Amino acid sequence: MIIVGEKINMSRSSVAKAWEQRDKGFIARLAADQAKAGASYIDVNSGVYGEETECMEWLLSIVQDAVDLPVSIDTTHPGALEKALSRVRRPPLINSVSGEKVRWSTFLPILKGVDCRVIALLMGDDGIPRSVEDRMKNAAFLIDKLVEAGITVDRIFMDPCVVPIASDPAGGRTFLESLPRITETWPEVHLIAGISNVSFGLPMRALLNRTFLIMCVAKGLDAAILDPTDPGMHPAILAARAVLAKDPYCMEYLKGFRKGDLG
Amino acid sequence: MIIVGEKINMSRSSVAKAWEQRDKGFIARLAADQAKAGASYIDVNSGVYGEETECMEWLLSIVQDAVDLPVSIDTTHPGALEKALSRVRRPPLINSVSGEKVRWSTFLPILKGVDCRVIALLMGDDGIPRSVEDRMKNAAFLIDKLVEAGITVDRIFMDPCVVPIASDPAGGRTFLESLPRITETWPEVHLIAGISNVSFGLPMRALLNRTFLIMCVAKGLDAAILDPTDPGMHPAILAARAVLAKDPYCMEYLKGFRKGDLG
Repeated sequence: MIIVGEKINMSRSSVAKAWEQRDKGFIARLAADQAKAGASYIDVNSGVYGEETECMEWLLSIVQDAVDLPVSIDTTHPGALEKALSRVRRPPLINSVSGEKVRWSTFLPILKGVDCRVIALLMGDDGIPRSVEDRMKNAAFLIDKLVEAGITVDRIFMDPCVVPIASDPAGGRTFLESLPRITETWPEVHLIAGISNVSFGLPMRALLNRTFLIMCVAKGLDAAILDPTDPGMHPAILAARAVLAKDPYCMEYLKGFRKGDLG
Repeated sequence: MIIVGEKINMSRSSVAKAWEQRDKGFIARLAADQAKAGASYIDVNSGVYGEETECMEWLLSIVQDAVDLPVSIDTTHPGALEKALSRVRRPPLINSVSGEKVRWSTFLPILKGVDCRVIALLMGDDGIPRSVEDRMKNAAFLIDKLVEAGITVDRIFMDPCVVPIASDPAGGRTFLESLPRITETWPEVHLIAGISNVSFGLPMRALLNRTFLIMCVAKGLDAAILDPTDPGMHPAILAARAVLAKDPYCMEYLKGFRKGDLG
């Protein structure tokens, strides 16, 4: 399971405050805590209006000094993306290219020939996808565009776009239904989700998040954007993999138990 | 979700001891605790060699005095089944009829014309089912036999038989795969599982049990044999139903939150 640690995100007030105060220690600790909790990538979101590029450069320098992990470049700003690509020390994950013209038409020329993996967010110019068919249409479009830009299918991480169940009750269910549809069509593609979106606006979010994650893993999800320091997440992943025979003879599960990782 | 509380079972040493000592208070408390925790049926297992019928009668009298819930009659002994049917105060669940000849050929004549629901355990004379196809074959056989005995399809609870993952790594996965296959073939049938079998022989069983339950609910399970007093179970069910849009606008989930039921 590939885990993208989501905590360094400017939409979080503590992170925005760290940027305002140029508090390097706070950002470095967020990176180190997520690395220790099992993150495979550290997401770096620089969404500060008008300062995206400067903020991206600042965050990347701190994160890459703090941990020996690749980063996930989380921006909608082409300038910040270019800056990030000039600063990364290991092949990054790009979070994300979508089917919105403003996104793919600016990002794909920058990504041409770059050694990276790319999240394909299955949104298009007609907005947030509601049905499985909306998502499949966006997926077909994006696969073509990405392959044309030299991103091989095995480096594409499809994100069918988690819609909060508080705004659309079917948001979780249609997301889950789209996962096997995607792998039936493109078996080599990875499947990723921004897990915590599902619980937006509801109480006890960690409970909903890990419940949704378990269902996603059962449907073939092999990567997730989440908070790896949430104490319920790692046990949920180990248990899900054991139950699904993705961890034969429960070796990882038993190792997690002996290390005291199961809670 | 129909919950069958599993705790009054003679394979548990504390329950066997209560039977030996004729400790009515212990059994009554197990029934009351499970009722309070949300059980729909109280399972009554009288598996004491040579004393099945007497034990069943003793347990039923205590449980039915203690709680106003129907019982699940859990026996492989035809005499105990007949005794139970003469003592139940509400239409019971029969746990269970299987495809083993010794079971269906003795149980079905007794159940003919009885107002009850029946668990169809998808085991046959060739032993524990390993594949989805084994289960489908047993299901087709049992549906015919049960309908012939007057049990309508909507009163049948198919249990595809959970094999512990510690003995067969694919035990959980093949169980999960068989759930949608059954409902595609017989849409009116209920789906039930003995959840805790999945974790037999492994540590941190409650974690594996609730993870498996969440996956089962995502595949259409609408009934479960489990320990309703396990503090993680009720939150897992509420969260699973919310994520799957089986609880539109999260009304039950929010009610559970306000009551402090989410942990």
